[in-house]
Amino acid sequence: MTTAFYVPPASRHGERIVLPDDEARHAVGVLRKRAGDEVIVIDGEGGWHRVRLDQVGDERAAGTVLETRREVGEPAYVMSMGVGLIKSRNRFETFVEKAVELGVREIVPLHTARTEREGVKEERTRNVMVAAMKQCGRSRLPSLTTPRALPEAITHVEAFDAVLVAHEQVDPTQSVRAALADAPDAARVRVLIGPEGGFTDDEVAMITEAGGTAVSLGPRRLRTETAGIAAAVAVQEALTSSRSPHSL
Amino acid sequence: MTTAFYVPPASRHGERIVLPDDEARHAVGVLRKRAGDEVIVIDGEGGWHRVRLDQVGDERAAGTVLETRREVGEPAYVMSMGVGLIKSRNRFETFVEKAVELGVREIVPLHTARTEREGVKEERTRNVMVAAMKQCGRSRLPSLTTPRALPEAITHVEAFDAVLVAHEQVDPTQSVRAALADAPDAARVRVLIGPEGGFTDDEVAMITEAGGTAVSLGPRRLRTETAGIAAAVAVQEALTSSRSPHSL
Repeated sequence: MTTAFYVPPASRHGERIVLPDDEARHAVGVLRKRAGDEVIVIDGEGGWHRVRLDQVGDERAAGTVLETRREVGEPAYVMSMGVGLIKSRNRFETFVEKAVELGVREIVPLHTARTEREGVKEERTRNVMVAAMKQCGRSRLPSLTTPRALPEAITHVEAFDAVLVAHEQVDPTQSVRAALADAPDAARVRVLIGPEGGFTDDEVAMITEAGGTAVSLGPRRLRTETAGIAAAVAVQEALTSSRSPHSL
Repeated sequence: MTTAFYVPPASRHGERIVLPDDEARHAVGVLRKRAGDEVIVIDGEGGWHRVRLDQVGDERAAGTVLETRREVGEPAYVMSMGVGLIKSRNRFETFVEKAVELGVREIVPLHTARTEREGVKEERTRNVMVAAMKQCGRSRLPSLTTPRALPEAITHVEAFDAVLVAHEQVDPTQSVRAALADAPDAARVRVLIGPEGGFTDDEVAMITEAGGTAVSLGPRRLRTETAGIAAAVAVQEALTSSRSPHSL
């Protein structure tokens, strides 16, 4: 299976697809694609196309759609993840890359009581997301919102079937799986992960009072990026298995 | 909760504990610990001690054990993870750090058909493991074996209650949770993760013929380190939940 090319919907005209300059250079200059070759193109909005290239130049590649599918590589649910901003840009980018691989649809950087960074490098982070999307075989580019204060992230709790907050003080039996046991068909889930040092008790109380459920990600103290990754996996395991013939 | 100090059992003499030089320097020079202060000491073999320091010098710190517990922060099962060696040292170290945080007990670097690296920097990797152990609140230092050929990793399958191999071609409903549904009390689990490009079909066949179960980590193509992390979380979710009052 090959890496897909990212072509936003604006570059598609009916069955004609023109690769953006950088993707064309990569296709032609690096991967040596030629007229007649088939490539996979994703539009970042759930569109997946098998395309035959027919016009290939030094910095140009265009072709015709042979087959279109929708939502390739996408989960059946929407997972929005609010994550406290952390000091290390490397660790934040590790989280972002893995979140894309693990099907997260929206990343909401959070300002919280213990946050020590103001914002994210948007373009740089978006590049990480695009690369991960192309590599892992999904067809949607997750969104990265501007940083929000925690209260903003819990104002519309009713828009989600479940809002989970990871908290170190919670008994390990209060797993994500247990929390989602009553919502096996959840279509929209929001998960909140604290920054280094975690959410304060007041913040956890604010979230649970707004309708969120405190969950444990196990008996160890996880770094922020590890907690975000672990929560994404746990949600995937809980919601995928419960829809499978292998679940109880 | 503070970071623990790592003091191997050899530095404990009855109720007396002498911190190794580097831990003493950190305790005294960086954290400004003084005689009378309490610290947490772990021995990397499941021992956890609350210690009162009584001898504190420029590069020396020693004290007396006030309380001892066993297996603090450790899972009820032993997870051994065989992981194909990958080119990027950074990505391998990301995996190692997260594996420690997520309770993995043994890391076995694997030589496979698609492996492109010979070995790991042992001391450097061990330092990552020690730091993660201290930070995450567990009391065991996971072992890092020398790299093994894949066949060696499946010669004693009977030593494990379950051997799982992550494979991209497997239906996503064949989750880790489904695979462990028949072994909710598993005490020893081995998980095998391929290198970049994955295991070959022949390798997966070899593993399943030896008694392993092929599992899916979801419908997307995960990088090696992401797959390792995801598998560790999935095993934790499957085995912890099944022992909890919240499980079915």
